Formats: sequence, structure tokens, C-alpha cells
Amino acid sequence: MSGKQNQYNVGLDKTPANYVPLTPLSFLARSAAVYPDLISTIYEGRSFTWAQTYARCRRLASYLASRKIGEGDTVAAMLPNIPAMNEVHFAVPMAGAVLNALNIRLDASSIAFQLDHGGAKVILVDPEFSAVITEALGLMKGPKPFVIDVNDASFAGGKQIGGIEYEDALAQGDENFVPRLPQDEWEAIALSYTSGTTGNPKGVVTHHRGAYLNAVSNILAGNLGQHPVYLWTLPMFHCNGWCFPWTIAASAGINVCLRKVDPTKIFELIRRHEVTHMAGAPIVYNTLINAPDAPKGTDARRVVGLIAGAAPPVAVLEGAESIGIKLTHVYGLTEVYGPASVCAEQPGWDGLPADQRAQLKRRQGVPYPLEEAVTVIDPETMR
Amino acid sequence: MSGKQNQYNVGLDKTPANYVPLTPLSFLARSAAVYPDLISTIYEGRSFTWAQTYARCRRLASYLASRKIGEGDTVAAMLPNIPAMNEVHFAVPMAGAVLNALNIRLDASSIAFQLDHGGAKVILVDPEFSAVITEALGLMKGPKPFVIDVNDASFAGGKQIGGIEYEDALAQGDENFVPRLPQDEWEAIALSYTSGTTGNPKGVVTHHRGAYLNAVSNILAGNLGQHPVYLWTLPMFHCNGWCFPWTIAASAGINVCLRKVDPTKIFELIRRHEVTHMAGAPIVYNTLINAPDAPKGTDARRVVGLIAGAAPPVAVLEGAESIGIKLTHVYGLTEVYGPASVCAEQPGWDGLPADQRAQLKRRQGVPYPLEEAVTVIDPETMR
Repeated sequence: MSGKQNQYNVGLDKTPANYVPLTPLSFLARSAAVYPDLISTIYEGRSFTWAQTYARCRRLASYLASRKIGEGDTVAAMLPNIPAMNEVHFAVPMAGAVLNALNIRLDASSIAFQLDHGGAKVILVDPEFSAVITEALGLMKGPKPFVIDVNDASFAGGKQIGGIEYEDALAQGDENFVPRLPQDEWEAIALSYTSGTTGNPKGVVTHHRGAYLNAVSNILAGNLGQHPVYLWTLPMFHCNGWCFPWTIAASAGINVCLRKVDPTKIFELIRRHEVTHMAGAPIVYNTLINAPDAPKGTDARRVVGLIAGAAPPVAVLEGAESIGIKLTHVYGLTEVYGPASVCAEQPGWDGLPADQRAQLKRRQGVPYPLEEAVTVIDPETMR
Repeated sequence: MSGKQNQYNVGLDKTPANYVPLTPLSFLARSAAVYPDLISTIYEGRSFTWAQTYARCRRLASYLASRKIGEGDTVAAMLPNIPAMNEVHFAVPMAGAVLNALNIRLDASSIAFQLDHGGAKVILVDPEFSAVITEALGLMKGPKPFVIDVNDASFAGGKQIGGIEYEDALAQGDENFVPRLPQDEWEAIALSYTSGTTGNPKGVVTHHRGAYLNAVSNILAGNLGQHPVYLWTLPMFHCNGWCFPWTIAASAGINVCLRKVDPTKIFELIRRHEVTHMAGAPIVYNTLINAPDAPKGTDARRVVGLIAGAAPPVAVLEGAESIGIKLTHVYGLTEVYGPASVCAEQPGWDGLPADQRAQLKRRQGVPYPLEEAVTVIDPETMR
């Protein structure tokens, strides 16, 4: 029977003209409205509520818009896991632009390539990276982006190299700016470059719909529940932190920010803020397990840790448990917004001996909860 | 700047031709693959696993397809909250058809109107309703649907009035039937009639995308987590049980089925199966609170109960807490897949005196988590 010849398909078999696109920007708007006074972000003795974070993002979006940044423009960020890095995940698309989060470990020539290739019109820079960005800007072939310095009282060194400081830009922006929502949920939200095994880095463009769905999938796969306390051990530049900036907004949790992986600091933050979840590469967990001041036994606070990459060795899984971190193995790639598969724990595993449990937990896994399929389109062939 | 004139919108500003639609059918497929041996359904001493439920649904879909039921066809169900009623929520759309769940409290003329108006080609009938359906079929003006009897050893009375019994139909079906997924996520999945304050009942057609999103919203709003144990006090015919058949599949939980609201039985099921969540109208909770054998104090197992309708009285909120049910107030309507708003609990409420907490919990609420907007289209004007 043809889809056009029955009573149900009149007008319902294609996207309605007045549909509202799925976008992770709505997560922030909702958490700011529903939980305005809950803490959204903690960093070095400073904290923001969800209402404040929303206002800050609207201010930055407003400032960007005042600089004529909008639809189709690229805004780059060379930032560690500080509050501003979380904020740009909302503020840049709120202005209608696309976020290009740069790998802070790259050298100047790689950064110059990405800024040229992505056509960044603005770049936010942490003082730690002022030297490499200065060098990169010098290596660029095309127009250079306008630089916003993001100062950090807790970082000594570096210098301001840009046209305005982040907080000054926010002060110039309007906290009642009306975010520009995508007209279509397949519109671009972020541009990330993968290292690529051949030639230059490859750009991956992700869309609002995918970011929305994978952000929710993280809640389901990691069993985050409402109001998780998420420690930022995973770089936000890495596949947009696997969509966790949007996940934590969707779950009205707390972003515990962290400039760099430092075991002593991590253990302190876990204890002080009662961290419930974290994520990272195997190296992060190895570093924690081998740290001399790692908490052992009953001192260890139980945290769910997502671990990505190849199947983790049994020693890592068991070692993490001994310091209070219960690992869940995920695997993914930039093209699919971060995690695409998860080793879904089965009821009863907790009762098994640690070595048996570790054997089960290192299996490669099953599809991520809301991942219906993976379709990667090559912009040159459009296939 | 036009959406067509920038580097990002080439091919990404509209639905890709080869996209995979959002459909709640994928929840069942995933849970059957990831958690095949976990219990999906419990009813009167009988239980199924997720693998079995998937196989049963595929069998029914196959049987329906063998009867030439497919795209654009309507399959009605006059069933209480038994396993078959849960299964038709998957099997009917798997065949490409649309599920019309009938209110089991309706009289013959209302049912006849709905069967005629919806053009049901098949109807599944519980013996409890064999008399009213026989009468309704006699009142119909158009072609009568083929009847599948759904026998129930735990119900005495009624009789078989149809062409085949449910289990026999399953036996004739193929458990390896390949489900027909929607070509477009805006395709119809269900038809529900609202009572309407004027004239005849009004038909509401819902789509796969909305069912998918609201099913996930239930997990987020009710904080269901993974593997909830859900007691079916809410009728599945009521807005498709607020999408909970799909929600429980998405969370790989347990459907604890229940033919009718019977306090003694409900308390026993809560205890025996360690129920975590339930839902219903205020009358359900009132009945439980006033039951002579309601468990009090420490005997009461803590259950999260979603309560719909007008703001619940403080006495109901406090009364429910006294028998171990922590209520969350939601509000919605058939047109929006069930709950559309929720009184989102704020951290700290648990520490307040019961009367203060009850005052806060009866507020009307905020938008449901993934509810971006509500758009109801009138099929006559297509607006």
C-alpha cells in the first residue's frame, strides 16, 4: 500500500513545516528555568548556577552577534576544561555559529591549518596557549580570527594577545539576548578535526539533532540520573567532551571543571564535591591508580567512570575499583559524537569476583542507547 | 546570511535521504539484543524475558502481515493491562499498522463509532469484554474487524468471539519476521480517541518520533534509571499508557502487569517484585491510601508514583508517603503522548516537613524534559 493512499499519511509522512528542531540548546534553557539556583559549574573556588550560566552564555552569544558572527561562521576555542569552555558549547551555537574546539596539545602549524580550513572568525584563547596561538596566527594563510583572551586567576604565565578579555566581552553582551535556534535540526553545531592517519587533519561536522540525541544517550548509558556531579577529566575539545557539556545541562548536574589531570587535585575534587561520574582515556585512570596518594578501600568514594579506547586491561578495571572508580567501557569516534558503543553491565556482575567482573567489563559492547544508526557523509561526494 | 551560502549547510540543512527514523520499536530490538535474559513482563505467575517478548511481538507482526495488515491499517485492542496489551504496542507498528487502544470502560455504541471511524481491520479482545464487543460489532456501519481472542487463565467468564486465539496466532507467526520500520519518523504509530466534551470522540494520531521522545522523557522525568520495575496501575489504553510500554523497553525494565486496580494485589505485587515505579490517576492513589491493608511506616516499600490530573490535594500527597509511595505530579493530554508537564522536585525537598513538601509537590510544574514544543495538527485544515 502506498504511503500516500491511506488515512494516516496525509501531512504526517514528512517533517511538518512548523516543527521545532531538536537542539541541545534547549537543555540549558530548561535547566535555567527549572533549576535556576542549582550549581551548574565549579572551578577553583568560583561557582555558577544554571541561571547564571544561561545568562553568561546569552551574553557571549550577544557579544558574538554584535561582532556579526552568525549562521555559517566558525568560532574556535583553545581552552582547557574551564567554565568558558563549557559556555562556548552553548553560546557559539546560540549565535548561530559553529564551534571548533581545538586540541590544546597541537602544535602551531596544525592549529594554523585548522583555523584556515575552518575559516574561524573568532578564537577564544587561554593564556597557557597564548604563545602557540600567536605562532599559529603568524602561520595562517587566510584572514586571522579575532582573539578573545580568557584570563584565569589560577594560572600563572602566558599573556593577553587578543582584542578583548572574556569577562569584558560578557559584560558588553546582553543577558536577555534571544538565542538563535536552528531552523533545521540537521544544521551544523560543531566542527572537530580528527588527527587523521594520512595527510592533514580531517574536519568532522556534527549537527544539532545528533548532539541532542547523544547527549541524552550519555544519561541513559552512564545511568547519570538527575543532578549528577561530573568531573571534567575528559578534554572538552575531544569530540566536544563526548557531548557531556550538553548532557550535564540536560540532567541539571554540576560541571566540576579541571585545568589539567592532576591526581591529587582529582582525588580532592571527588571527595569535596561528591563527584558521581567522570570520563576519560585509559591513561587518565592509569595515572590515578598509580598515584601515591590514591584513596584505597573504604576511603574511596564510589564514582562511575566511563573509559574509552581499546578494551581496558583487567589490571586497569580492577585497579580502578580498588580506588573507588567503577569503570564502564565505551568506544566511539569523533564522527559519532563520542561514544557509539558501551559494554552494558548486566545485573549480577557486582556480585562476581573482581577478576571475573573485569573480564566481562572489558568486552567491546553494544550500541549506545539512542544510536539508531551511524551515517557519515563525505562533503565532497555527498555520500 | 542565507543558509545556503555558507560552508556548513551543503547537504546538512535538511533531512538526509538515508537517515534512520526515530521509532520506539528500536528500544525493544536493543533490549532484546543487550539484555535477552532479563525479565520483561510478569503476569499471574507467568513471565517473559526481553528476548521472548521480542520474539512474541515479531510473531504477532508476522501473523498480522500474513492477514495483509500493513501500512495505513488500523488494529484495535480491547484489553486490560495484560502482556498482550504491552506486546501490541510493538507488534502492530512492526507490521506497519497503527494501534488503536480502546478505553475498556466504553459502551458498545462508543466502541462501534471508534471502530468505524478508525477503520479497524483487526481487533484483539479480552474475554472480559466479549459481550460489549459483540454488541459493538453489531452496531457498526462499516466492515467489521477480524477478531483475535486473547484468553486469560486468570479470568473466569466471557467467551471466545473471534476467528483465532492470541497464542495460536503467535504460533502461526514467524519469530524471525523482519519488523517494518517507518520510512519516516513522522509516520503514525497510534490512534487514540479522546472523550471529547462535544459530540463524538475525537481521534488523535501520534507519530513514531513523538512516541520515541516522550518514552525517553519518562525515564528522565521519573528518574527511572536502568531496569526499573514498573507496576501497570495506569491503563495502557490511556494515551498508550503515557508511552510507558516504550519507556520500559527503552530502560530494559520489568512490566508488572495487572488486570484491575485491586489494593491488596497491588501491595502484594509491590512487595514481591520490588516495584520501583508506578503511575496513575488520583483515584488510584486514593484507593490505595484508604485500603484497610495498606502498609504503614517501615513496612512500606518506597515506590515512585507519577500522579496525573489536577493538582493533587495535600492529603493525597501525604497519604501516599505514609504508605511508601513518593508522588510526582504530572499533567498532560492524549494529544501530547501523555505527560507534558512535571512538578520537578528540587533537591532539599526530602528534608522538609511532609506538609510543606506536599504544598510544593502539588504545583503544576514545568515542561517535560524532551518536550521542545507542542504542535497539534487538525487533519481537516492541516494547520
